[in-house]
Amino acid sequence: MSKKSSSVRAAPVAIVMGSQSDMSVMTAAGDALKKLGIASHTAIISAHRTPHEVAKFAEGARKKGIQVIIAGAGGAAHLPGMIAAYTELPVIGVPVPIGPMQGTDALHSIVQMPKGVPVATVAIGNAWNAGVLAAQILGTGDSKILDRVLGYKAEMREAVLSSK
Amino acid sequence: MSKKSSSVRAAPVAIVMGSQSDMSVMTAAGDALKKLGIASHTAIISAHRTPHEVAKFAEGARKKGIQVIIAGAGGAAHLPGMIAAYTELPVIGVPVPIGPMQGTDALHSIVQMPKGVPVATVAIGNAWNAGVLAAQILGTGDSKILDRVLGYKAEMREAVLSSK
Amino acid sequence: MSKKSSSVRAAPVAIVMGSQSDMSVMTAAGDALKKLGIASHTAIISAHRTPHEVAKFAEGARKKGIQVIIAGAGGAAHLPGMIAAYTELPVIGVPVPIGPMQGTDALHSIVQMPKGVPVATVAIGNAWNAGVLAAQILGTGDSKILDRVLGYKAEMREAVLSSK
Amino acid sequence: MSKKSSSVRAAPVAIVMGSQSDMSVMTAAGDALKKLGIASHTAIISAHRTPHEVAKFAEGARKKGIQVIIAGAGGAAHLPGMIAAYTELPVIGVPVPIGPMQGTDALHSIVQMPKGVPVATVAIGNAWNAGVLAAQILGTGDSKILDRVLGYKAEMREAVLSSK
Amino acid sequence: MSKKSSSVRAAPVAIVMGSQSDMSVMTAAGDALKKLGIASHTAIISAHRTPHEVAKFAEGARKKGIQVIIAGAGGAAHLPGMIAAYTELPVIGVPVPIGPMQGTDALHSIVQMPKGVPVATVAIGNAWNAGVLAAQILGTGDSKILDRVLGYKAEMREAVLSSK
Amino acid sequence: MSKKSSSVRAAPVAIVMGSQSDMSVMTAAGDALKKLGIASHTAIISAHRTPHEVAKFAEGARKKGIQVIIAGAGGAAHLPGMIAAYTELPVIGVPVPIGPMQGTDALHSIVQMPKGVPVATVAIGNAWNAGVLAAQILGTGDSKILDRVLGYKAEMREAVLSSK
Amino acid sequence: MSKKSSSVRAAPVAIVMGSQSDMSVMTAAGDALKKLGIASHTAIISAHRTPHEVAKFAEGARKKGIQVIIAGAGGAAHLPGMIAAYTELPVIGVPVPIGPMQGTDALHSIVQMPKGVPVATVAIGNAWNAGVLAAQILGTGDSKILDRVLGYKAEMREAVLSSK
Amino acid sequence: MSKKSSSVRAAPVAIVMGSQSDMSVMTAAGDALKKLGIASHTAIISAHRTPHEVAKFAEGARKKGIQVIIAGAGGAAHLPGMIAAYTELPVIGVPVPIGPMQGTDALHSIVQMPKGVPVATVAIGNAWNAGVLAAQILGTGDSKILDRVLGYKAEMREAVLSSK
Repeated sequence: MSKKSSSVRAAPVAIVMGSQSDMSVMTAAGDALKKLGIASHTAIISAHRTPHEVAKFAEGARKKGIQVIIAGAGGAAHLPGMIAAYTELPVIGVPVPIGPMQGTDALHSIVQMPKGVPVATVAIGNAWNAGVLAAQILGTGDSKILDRVLGYKAEMREAVLSSK
Repeated sequence: MSKKSSSVRAAPVAIVMGSQSDMSVMTAAGDALKKLGIASHTAIISAHRTPHEVAKFAEGARKKGIQVIIAGAGGAAHLPGMIAAYTELPVIGVPVPIGPMQGTDALHSIVQMPKGVPVATVAIGNAWNAGVLAAQILGTGDSKILDRVLGYKAEMREAVLSSK
Repeated sequence: MSKKSSSVRAAPVAIVMGSQSDMSVMTAAGDALKKLGIASHTAIISAHRTPHEVAKFAEGARKKGIQVIIAGAGGAAHLPGMIAAYTELPVIGVPVPIGPMQGTDALHSIVQMPKGVPVATVAIGNAWNAGVLAAQILGTGDSKILDRVLGYKAEMREAVLSSK
Repeated sequence: MSKKSSSVRAAPVAIVMGSQSDMSVMTAAGDALKKLGIASHTAIISAHRTPHEVAKFAEGARKKGIQVIIAGAGGAAHLPGMIAAYTELPVIGVPVPIGPMQGTDALHSIVQMPKGVPVATVAIGNAWNAGVLAAQILGTGDSKILDRVLGYKAEMREAVLSSK
Repeated sequence: MSKKSSSVRAAPVAIVMGSQSDMSVMTAAGDALKKLGIASHTAIISAHRTPHEVAKFAEGARKKGIQVIIAGAGGAAHLPGMIAAYTELPVIGVPVPIGPMQGTDALHSIVQMPKGVPVATVAIGNAWNAGVLAAQILGTGDSKILDRVLGYKAEMREAVLSSK
Repeated sequence: MSKKSSSVRAAPVAIVMGSQSDMSVMTAAGDALKKLGIASHTAIISAHRTPHEVAKFAEGARKKGIQVIIAGAGGAAHLPGMIAAYTELPVIGVPVPIGPMQGTDALHSIVQMPKGVPVATVAIGNAWNAGVLAAQILGTGDSKILDRVLGYKAEMREAVLSSK
Repeated sequence: MSKKSSSVRAAPVAIVMGSQSDMSVMTAAGDALKKLGIASHTAIISAHRTPHEVAKFAEGARKKGIQVIIAGAGGAAHLPGMIAAYTELPVIGVPVPIGPMQGTDALHSIVQMPKGVPVATVAIGNAWNAGVLAAQILGTGDSKILDRVLGYKAEMREAVLSSK
Repeated sequence: MSKKSSSVRAAPVAIVMGSQSDMSVMTAAGDALKKLGIASHTAIISAHRTPHEVAKFAEGARKKGIQVIIAGAGGAAHLPGMIAAYTELPVIGVPVPIGPMQGTDALHSIVQMPKGVPVATVAIGNAWNAGVLAAQILGTGDSKILDRVLGYKAEMREAVLSSK
């Protein structure tokens, strides 16, 4: 697993994806979190090629101090749902737009989870929003983060108002 | 607004929907929360017929002590996204399967949110999962809730193992 | 807000969109109106990033003399529907083709409005037609405009007849 | 042609559809107009079985005093677009949900009109909204109608606020 | 109307389309017919911009000696269906792949015709096949044409067998 | 094979389908032909269960005097295309609406034929139109049939005009 | 796990599904295998509720003598793909038609597997064909099974030929 | 037919496709098989242009020693299903992404096969996985092949674990 952060205790948000090729889409999740003052790890694990590592990662995540998991995947896109199967933590899924179906396949695979095992799905290819949502989730237990989200919303408002 | 809870301080989860007819789908969200020991309010507000009330509700939600908002909607399904526009709290969207498109229209309207304003989308018609996800989100700040989610996952496992 | 017209009284048609990036699609609406002798304003307001400005704009539009509102949006595309929620004026929606779903998501979000709050939806990316439709709408109260639309239809006919 | 109104001068709104079987969906358009104080005619004409009548009706509509035309159709659903081809008046299209595709075919046929010839499309099966939109369109030239639409919006708001 | 053939009597197959921009797709229809020894006219007429010309063309086609009409259209794609409304001749429809929906909208508009008024629909963008089908249709009354189709099928077989 | 006609020489139109269960949809093809004065055979042959019979039927059809073949199929729906592979006669395909996809799968399988081997596709479940189209095709070589189609169109027109 | 067979050594085909409610669709797989003389086990295991049991089952399947695994699932439908992740045996996936999307979601989730980890997907709801395919797969190593498949194909042929 | 292997006895896997243009997608099937130590033939045969050759090939395949057939096709994509009609061997279908529908048409045509005649369908454009699946199928009768698949799965796991 590649790590972008070297803290002993895990960063509160883990960002995982099935392949190096998803990185160009998924880096935006970490960017959004950084903007909102939240550290994150990034790792490549595959539901289909490293299922044991997925199980181990997801089951151990809470103990390592991870609080939210963001998972991106394209095509059959089982990674977010399998992580959700193995952890009690909230899991955010990002459908990655690859191949001829451009993420509509991944959207269905990620969002249509069965009773009891939700994945919080965001827009196709919108990893930035997965980062923002992770911050909002952490904000339910940390008012300062919610204040930062509020500040970010004000910034976005200003950007629109000043566009000519 | 109808209220299922009468506590002075708001319940941590608000469940809103645009019309009385969504209730048969949306009650499962409150049921899931109850099972996981979390109180919820239910209210009917409409993005298109009571937009000011939506704005007022969403902007005031954090101050009232609401920590997560679940919003269900069918068709054009703007309610979850408009609440997300007005609050820094995490918003969970439930596409309600109504009319000839049976929720695929609502799925697109809810999940395809623009940069900066996510809605955590669950499966079409799966309000139960919205309740479970809300609990997981609250669990990031309250370990006892995560333990209850863990217990619920164990129960589900037992139910599968004992099915013959 | 950017304005293309500087008349004290508002132009009869307002053209709004959620982001500067929609401008390349939406300018055709103003072009069509200009061709049909009708002034228009263009502004950037966002349902999700400036919801209060949308409310204020839509509620005040009639008093400012605006008679028809054209709103373009992509993805979850809530802008046309939210404007329709706040005004009694007719609202025309243009699904903007962005991202992997290329406007089919926006089409569903814009056209599938609930009972009582219609949005007059035109083809994906076809802002020109939104301008023509706005002229036809104004024409119900101004026979000269309808005559110009008739002239435009004759022109189109000639263009087809002379194509070799 | 069946007529629901017997005034010498045509009602300002004509409601047309291709077959008697569309009537159960389309009557809601007239109901909405009636509620908003606007008279309407209803007629059955078919783009494919009575194309000359469609041409004659659409070309003569303005002279008869018709100001807005509502056209409902299912399947290939050419009626709204063909009326739009023959008249300078604004045309509202209602996709009627018939057969295995339940109106998604009609939606595409009605909304995806080419440059220069728009059809103002409303939600699948939502003829009520076609009536409301016709009223809003007439309201651009008649402030009393817009006031009635405003009153209707207030009613809808009250209905939501009083739902428990 | 542009004509590619100058015979006094009309060619047995007319190829029509709504705009010059459809020509790059539609020329293949004439190419296939030429290969099968059948003359064709090509003309640009538009269901929405020259509806009277469409009516006149379609109603007069049989008398001019036209036996089969091929019509190509994209988007709402009413041309094939409107020609079918006005003529008793067989009409072949070619969905032209334009815009964000790439011909799936046109496919629905062309193929989903109502009871009594069929359009013989071929694959999206496959005008060549419209030409072959027109030849097969003419072949029902002219055995030499069917023999040529048989020869063409043998050629295709040889081409596959010799591909390495 | 079941036969509805007992003439020594084959009827000019053969109606085939893959299974007895398609009969409720496909009988309308024969009804339309009967109305237009054209005899037809009906047979059950399956592309997947009796491929040799399909080949033999299609290759021998012309010699038996068959002039047009109508083939109905649902799901993967290979029957129309395979008949087209084996015959130079025109083949009309009817997508039969079965199973969860309700004929949209069959529509794609039937209409998206490759270069050189067209199937004249009609609307999902609309076998009646296959019969009308077959008559129009035969009419290219028999003016009396076209006259009957014209008469049928006049009848349809009257039926619409007299509907109240 | 429920077992339909009590042999000490595992039956060559295991049929698994995520919930008791899939049984009405999935029993046909065992019926087809029985007809072709092949024993099967049926078990309920869930990718999302009993992921460890899925891993254990799939990893141990080959050693127990299982040669082919049939997995049915609806919605996000991760079961077939996760079994394929954990075993080198061939896995057949059956999309189960549940909920508003009626199996088109499950089809995408099951068939769109990434490089290296295929699932042999059959038609939505067609568990019978999963059984036939399993027999054909076993037949590659056992000529008698292929002979039985051949016999079954002859039976199907006879059934079609004798249908009137 | 082109052959990539010159052994007297046929290779155990035949890879067929309808046209030379499918080769760029389909070569990956042979590459995967080669990696797993399995020989394959490649041939071009077309369901629509060489149907007799398809029948002859498929019916004779088992006698020539072929054990699994991989068939790739785009659009109407009848090749896999027609081969399945003519042989008792397992058939793997690869939807080839061509034209405006980019393989979603081919997916439906290949996977939605009727009762009794399955095609083992893999992801759109994923011929590599067809090769892996063919190896797994042969592995049911040859333990060494399954061991090689296991080795390949270990390799994939290593590749993921070492990606940074």
